[in-house]
Amino acid sequence: MRYSQTLIPTVKEVPADAEIPSHQLMLRAGIMRKVASGTYTYLPIGWRSILKVMNIVREEMDRAGALEILMPAVQPLELWQRTGRDVDYGETMTRFIDRHGRGNVLAPTAEEVVTDLASHEINSYKQLPLNLYQISFKFRDEFRPRFGVLRSREFIMKDAYSFHATPECLDKTYHTMYDTYCRIFRRCGLEYVIVEAETGEMGGSGSHQFTVPCESGEDVIVYTQDGSYAANIEKAEVDPLPKQPSAVSHQPPAMEEVHTPGVGSIEAVCAFLKTRPADMIKTLVYKMDDGIVMVLVRGDHDVNTEKLTQAVGGRHVEMADEAAIVGLTGAAVGFAGPQGLVGKVKHLFIDHSVAAMASGVTGANKTDYHVRNVVPGRDFPLDGADVKVCDIRNATEGDTHKGKKLLFKRGIEVGQVFKLGAKYSAKLAASFLDEKGEQNPCLMGCYGIGINRIVASAIELGHDENGIIWPVSIAPYEVIVTSVGQEDEVVASTAERIYKEFVAKGIDVIFDDRPGRAGVKFKDADLIGIPIRVTVGKKAVAEGNVEIKLRAASENKAVPISTVVDEVVRILAELKAKLNVDS
Amino acid sequence: MRYSQTLIPTVKEVPADAEIPSHQLMLRAGIMRKVASGTYTYLPIGWRSILKVMNIVREEMDRAGALEILMPAVQPLELWQRTGRDVDYGETMTRFIDRHGRGNVLAPTAEEVVTDLASHEINSYKQLPLNLYQISFKFRDEFRPRFGVLRSREFIMKDAYSFHATPECLDKTYHTMYDTYCRIFRRCGLEYVIVEAETGEMGGSGSHQFTVPCESGEDVIVYTQDGSYAANIEKAEVDPLPKQPSAVSHQPPAMEEVHTPGVGSIEAVCAFLKTRPADMIKTLVYKMDDGIVMVLVRGDHDVNTEKLTQAVGGRHVEMADEAAIVGLTGAAVGFAGPQGLVGKVKHLFIDHSVAAMASGVTGANKTDYHVRNVVPGRDFPLDGADVKVCDIRNATEGDTHKGKKLLFKRGIEVGQVFKLGAKYSAKLAASFLDEKGEQNPCLMGCYGIGINRIVASAIELGHDENGIIWPVSIAPYEVIVTSVGQEDEVVASTAERIYKEFVAKGIDVIFDDRPGRAGVKFKDADLIGIPIRVTVGKKAVAEGNVEIKLRAASENKAVPISTVVDEVVRILAELKAKLNVDS
Repeated sequence: MRYSQTLIPTVKEVPADAEIPSHQLMLRAGIMRKVASGTYTYLPIGWRSILKVMNIVREEMDRAGALEILMPAVQPLELWQRTGRDVDYGETMTRFIDRHGRGNVLAPTAEEVVTDLASHEINSYKQLPLNLYQISFKFRDEFRPRFGVLRSREFIMKDAYSFHATPECLDKTYHTMYDTYCRIFRRCGLEYVIVEAETGEMGGSGSHQFTVPCESGEDVIVYTQDGSYAANIEKAEVDPLPKQPSAVSHQPPAMEEVHTPGVGSIEAVCAFLKTRPADMIKTLVYKMDDGIVMVLVRGDHDVNTEKLTQAVGGRHVEMADEAAIVGLTGAAVGFAGPQGLVGKVKHLFIDHSVAAMASGVTGANKTDYHVRNVVPGRDFPLDGADVKVCDIRNATEGDTHKGKKLLFKRGIEVGQVFKLGAKYSAKLAASFLDEKGEQNPCLMGCYGIGINRIVASAIELGHDENGIIWPVSIAPYEVIVTSVGQEDEVVASTAERIYKEFVAKGIDVIFDDRPGRAGVKFKDADLIGIPIRVTVGKKAVAEGNVEIKLRAASENKAVPISTVVDEVVRILAELKAKLNVDS
Repeated sequence: MRYSQTLIPTVKEVPADAEIPSHQLMLRAGIMRKVASGTYTYLPIGWRSILKVMNIVREEMDRAGALEILMPAVQPLELWQRTGRDVDYGETMTRFIDRHGRGNVLAPTAEEVVTDLASHEINSYKQLPLNLYQISFKFRDEFRPRFGVLRSREFIMKDAYSFHATPECLDKTYHTMYDTYCRIFRRCGLEYVIVEAETGEMGGSGSHQFTVPCESGEDVIVYTQDGSYAANIEKAEVDPLPKQPSAVSHQPPAMEEVHTPGVGSIEAVCAFLKTRPADMIKTLVYKMDDGIVMVLVRGDHDVNTEKLTQAVGGRHVEMADEAAIVGLTGAAVGFAGPQGLVGKVKHLFIDHSVAAMASGVTGANKTDYHVRNVVPGRDFPLDGADVKVCDIRNATEGDTHKGKKLLFKRGIEVGQVFKLGAKYSAKLAASFLDEKGEQNPCLMGCYGIGINRIVASAIELGHDENGIIWPVSIAPYEVIVTSVGQEDEVVASTAERIYKEFVAKGIDVIFDDRPGRAGVKFKDADLIGIPIRVTVGKKAVAEGNVEIKLRAASENKAVPISTVVDEVVRILAELKAKLNVDS
């Protein structure tokens, strides 16, 4: 490809609304352009990288015996109603009525459609296992699209769905997919960690998340120094805190109401009452379709909604609205407390750290009032049919897991694998006849990879102040031939000859044949991050040389024109060997 | 690939709602499954064929210098409002409001988005020409999805958009795309014809349509025997009919009202008044945003809406609703006539064939009444500021073009190329600075190919009573090794060995390793249409042979096991040579 004949609109300025390096560089390097909030057009070099990632994913999925299919983006709402996930997805899932009045959704994922397919096509254990995948667009109407392609409204996902007759068979495919994901991320040049993950609204019995550690990531992973434990923040289990000494040594005075007019937030209450968040009991009200759920965590802790979802058996649970809170507590929002409400809620979940408190401050169930000296176990129960003390909060600095200190790291989730079990197959009648002639629901696994996120993660990991440093496997081009002096006939013809030799060798090369200054060309080559630059300049050519520079290194190396192609071939082989999964 | 490890759910019965061979066979051969009206999941062998078509399209577009990009499927409604096409597309374009209240559409095409991109990225003539393409999903909320993928709600389209500084440059790219399309369809094994086409709501100054002739097609192409003229029915120009002799010889009596209670349709009026459709004047009422358009055609003719669109300068025109018709004529729908209405409409278009009538029957502008002895030119004008006699109907049997008889053929439109000119660039401010430093709107072309339609057309052209006969270039597999007797160790191991030899040679092969009867396996191989079948059976193997059978031929040929791979390689080369565009 000739630079002059493609479209690489590089930009000097850092775009105002791009907060993280990958987003900034994907705009600056002419990889993509924003169309609307959370949607982008991929320009030629961006799309080349995406295609390379898709090809790696396709090759590895095929190698693992998965079968590529394609499901529609517009799916019948009715299928989602059968699994109840139309409710779970809420506003994040785009819905519309078509001209014949039928409800449709824009696919955020495809469990329903693929399970419905299986319900029609799978009859016998002899057809199992089966692992179907697609690489296609997914849609989420994000409340706040941000970070470029990391949280966008439209993105490319590889999603695979496996069907099995036995748990052992599911385990086997799950492990194959796990290994396949390792191969894929390695081939894409990503460093990654694998952590235990919650299954969330996907449901199922087990999950691992593949995360690329980097500061810009929205995901938090939690691990122990010795590597014996690693999980994402949604999953990470924390040890109960020790009972506060004062809770053991003396009995606090009775509860006391205090007037806290218009003071609702934890911070405001602490300032007003001169206490600390760690001495407050945060009372949160949620609702399920058949009742209210109350959750108590310490004022300096956050409820973990994944743990909450697991605590209610994987059912959909969401923040209660104002009316429900007022109805329950008799007070305005911001003044809820657990005292006296146990019989009125379906579940009360109390975090271990609250149970360990000597006493705390919480809402008085009375507008503009809080109450202090609230003693867990005295002023509200710690056990009972609807009451449970459990781990229901996010891990935080200072927490331990099995006695070992937990460490925290941010990252980008690039893939996740799930054991779904029979959650979808039971609801959508995807069953098979086993060897004894009995009907059983298929056991399922599902396996997702964010294609765009791989590209963004590679940039988060590989960049410097001058631009992107691509892994060779997913760079838009492997080599750039930069002619410094197209105006000079000898330079131009030498560059042209070298370019054509690369093309003849099947090397993925771009030729910067533009007129103009060397500085501009070097800056562009650095910004778009091509792994190997071959510079053809007047002085070196006069001496029979050109220069080779790796994007990841700072030195230029003079190489005779006659050997430059062989030398580049050798370097490329070296770069590729580093990403080679079979070496 | 092993047959036992993929998913090819063949079906014996012809599906009830599939009307044409390609639709029937795509379901029967396990190529796809319906998800909802007009949407399908592509199963493994279907998706393989689609991928092969996409690769051919991609290779040829790249060879032609076009640059691949990807635009989002969810597009801002606002862009469509700026070109006015939100109105043109009507209900066919899916719209929805997102959670932040913004209007969105599901892309039926991408002129707006790509032109908006160009408006930001193109500044100078030095950046032109530029030809951007994508291969992506498009959406149309068809009123009546049918014929499988030929008229579906979601389909894969290659759409390209070129930008130019001069008409000559646009012409050049237009011709390159024209040639590229010829290469693509030839490589996909399609017979096709190229006809002149109307630009419709795309706008612009010229268009050609690539059509695969076949009985099942929804498009009609019109041509002369000598090949001097070919167009699609929307475009085909017809000669005016000669003036009816009686119109010359004597003057008919005055108009006469007749009571035709409840008789509105042409057929009903003819039956009631004992006349023929050819003696009736059909009066049709349309509306534009600034007035009513009346069109007169003979009772046996149909208005050509493309010609009508051109007649009003490419603006949007649609059938008037009941209220507008009643308001204009003072009568119920079905009783309109041109008499006395000329001053009340923005345009009156009279087809040549109406102008040539001696007299006719038409509506009386009075509910339940028609009028006879209506003489064109006497009872309504044939000229005037708002009146035009022109070619405004579809060509029909008996028509001529420049004196030559027109012939008709049905076909499937697989591609179309358009010269758009400045229609979009002017509205969306996509301009460039020319050599003199003046701003001009970019001239544009656009070029579409229906990927799924290529697959369906290939099946329409290539099938027999036993199933599909794929062109080798887009067959899901090139070769099938059919083991007839997997239960026999010698047969099984011979088949396995041959399969592996094919794999080692890089041949795209599927191995029918299933147990079971030969009849079932042959039927499946025929149904899914693999070009070359290698049969490994007990008797032949005992003699050191296997059999080769081409799907397109009836004979089996015995070949020594030792040479079968070479022989298949030779046949494949022969089959491919037939589709080779460079030979």
